[in-house]
Amino acid sequence: MRDVAIIGIGCTHFGEMWERSFRDLFVEAGSDALDDAAIHGEEIDALYVGNMSAGRFIDQEHVGALIVDYAGLAGSLHMPSTRVEAACASGGLALRQAFLAVASGHHDIVVAAGVEKMTDVETETTIDALASAADREWEGFMGATFPGLYAMIARLHMHKYGTTQEQLAQVAVKNHHNAAMNPKAQYKNEISTSVVLNSAMIADPLRIYDCSPITDGAAAIVLAPAEVARRFTDTPVYVSASAQASDTIALHDRRDITTLDATVHAARWAYKRAGIGPEDIHLAEVHDCFTIAEICAIEDLGFVKKGEGGPVTEEGMTALDGKIPINPSGGLKACGHPVGATGVKQAVEIISQLRGEAGKRQVAKAEMGLTHNVGGTGGTAIVHILSINR
Amino acid sequence: MRDVAIIGIGCTHFGEMWERSFRDLFVEAGSDALDDAAIHGEEIDALYVGNMSAGRFIDQEHVGALIVDYAGLAGSLHMPSTRVEAACASGGLALRQAFLAVASGHHDIVVAAGVEKMTDVETETTIDALASAADREWEGFMGATFPGLYAMIARLHMHKYGTTQEQLAQVAVKNHHNAAMNPKAQYKNEISTSVVLNSAMIADPLRIYDCSPITDGAAAIVLAPAEVARRFTDTPVYVSASAQASDTIALHDRRDITTLDATVHAARWAYKRAGIGPEDIHLAEVHDCFTIAEICAIEDLGFVKKGEGGPVTEEGMTALDGKIPINPSGGLKACGHPVGATGVKQAVEIISQLRGEAGKRQVAKAEMGLTHNVGGTGGTAIVHILSINR
Repeated sequence: MRDVAIIGIGCTHFGEMWERSFRDLFVEAGSDALDDAAIHGEEIDALYVGNMSAGRFIDQEHVGALIVDYAGLAGSLHMPSTRVEAACASGGLALRQAFLAVASGHHDIVVAAGVEKMTDVETETTIDALASAADREWEGFMGATFPGLYAMIARLHMHKYGTTQEQLAQVAVKNHHNAAMNPKAQYKNEISTSVVLNSAMIADPLRIYDCSPITDGAAAIVLAPAEVARRFTDTPVYVSASAQASDTIALHDRRDITTLDATVHAARWAYKRAGIGPEDIHLAEVHDCFTIAEICAIEDLGFVKKGEGGPVTEEGMTALDGKIPINPSGGLKACGHPVGATGVKQAVEIISQLRGEAGKRQVAKAEMGLTHNVGGTGGTAIVHILSINR
Repeated sequence: MRDVAIIGIGCTHFGEMWERSFRDLFVEAGSDALDDAAIHGEEIDALYVGNMSAGRFIDQEHVGALIVDYAGLAGSLHMPSTRVEAACASGGLALRQAFLAVASGHHDIVVAAGVEKMTDVETETTIDALASAADREWEGFMGATFPGLYAMIARLHMHKYGTTQEQLAQVAVKNHHNAAMNPKAQYKNEISTSVVLNSAMIADPLRIYDCSPITDGAAAIVLAPAEVARRFTDTPVYVSASAQASDTIALHDRRDITTLDATVHAARWAYKRAGIGPEDIHLAEVHDCFTIAEICAIEDLGFVKKGEGGPVTEEGMTALDGKIPINPSGGLKACGHPVGATGVKQAVEIISQLRGEAGKRQVAKAEMGLTHNVGGTGGTAIVHILSINR
């Protein structure tokens, strides 16, 4: 296995993109990433695309071929293009497969992309499609959609650790604050704790501001062998570790629903691979599909002890100027959550930060960052560690 | 990249499996493959599963986590499990990704599986889900479903090369003959040319017997590094080449719709990698989603010159006792076509043949075989070459 670098990144605006199709979104993110790497399409050896549910959202499967076609890379090139899916972790999975393709020596220049177009169908269809990330037979058919599942996690977390609604709200307040400095974010408005606490109840104790939104968007990354990275860019970022773990798809079989074992396993493996510990990470993008998910994530990733996620959030440890800034992009909560694109966007944000290109939301010390992408309620977790040092 | 061997295979019956769920099908095929390899689940390092459209067929995405869970491999193991999708080539893609995972040295024991449960929804939904393998905006929305698209290919093939309906029918007759000797096939009935020619017209010139059916089924394969294969089995089969190519997703942009360029490119790459030519292949499982597709395939794979596919089929060259037996399993046409499982089943059949375990349908000389799996009308093509010699 050889070292792998990221030489280009691209990302669309996130939001309700009524005027843009799935194809448009992919092409924009992909073109931006190629421009950033200063390469042409013909230099690409393979493509991996993360997408959760184009079959439900736009009645289109086979999106690997679709994107090759619309990127103008079909025909005389043979361009293997592979769609991978692990629900909301599809983007992270695409990055991981692309990483493996380069690390193994099988391909040199590989694009990892993520794309989702969620707003072309009625909200009811979107919610039902999202519920297909959970166990349809034991959760979905019983009426459990994602807010309900994460509400159960939140209830138990409150019961076991004394986590409060104010602490959950603080995750949303922080992430909206960060998103307000991110020109590509879906929500650029600051909010106060009282706005969160007085917003509509969705699934007790989760209110509307505890939930990530429905979003259209795409992101793309160009990977290359580390030894040639400086041919393409002055600011290569290296993939120090890529890890993936699985767990039961349904909550009811878990030993403890407040801990995502897949996150714990993936993180442990990633730290080992990178030869570091959680204390060496300067900043992270974690999977805050709900506010409680960010609190569980910072615990399961080892940034704080189990049960301390709420208090440290309230104390500002995870703010942009805190000890470990979490979700500088605004996270899924406020930057938006186009499910298949999220895992790639997380890496785009960390890379921007490591390059020192994150503008107003730039984290002061950003040399080693982590991304954490979850499928469903933790059936899949994918962790990447990115660094400016090889 | 190191050599890779196949040490275990499993396959369910194909057909309308009313009494079995998606989960049951996967678990049966996977268990059979593990038994065949004489290993336990804990010895597996990673899983790849090909599935086209569980999102539409059973309202379930995230099937990577689902299968880990129902295979009893979640929890204490971290088991990365990755769903890949390329429409009807999803199974071949799973095999390819599993091959790369082992070849790269990243994992040792890897399972490639394919599964599809197509009969739990109304036929109209199934047809619409299948249409999502084509270009929804330029084909599906205009009313073009797959029989219509392949009918256009057939019409042009007839016009350019004089291919006849009798020759198309002969593909179906041969494949039903083979399936009649395959205990796992969906259709075990022999048919005559006149039955095909007098059957209901679906999309002129394709009749119902020119079309592959809607099928439930699963198949699984266990891969391992070649150097340890004989620890597990006395009859290892080696992966001599694995190739994947893409083309435009829609037919209208192709230079010639009677040639699937993705097949041509993937085959060329595979032959080069294996250091052989098409004349060295003893038997093949090709993607006969329609009878015309088998005729195009044997041409595009280089077994015969372009335009000769019809006549050689009529002359018996592709029969079980012919110069190059094609689809000894009965093919998609008669063994059945559970779309995500097909690419893996093709390999299971070739491996059974290479091991000399194919019973009544055993091909006399079977030392090197080929599988050819297509997504849509050729947006993706995947070719594997399998051999008893390393």
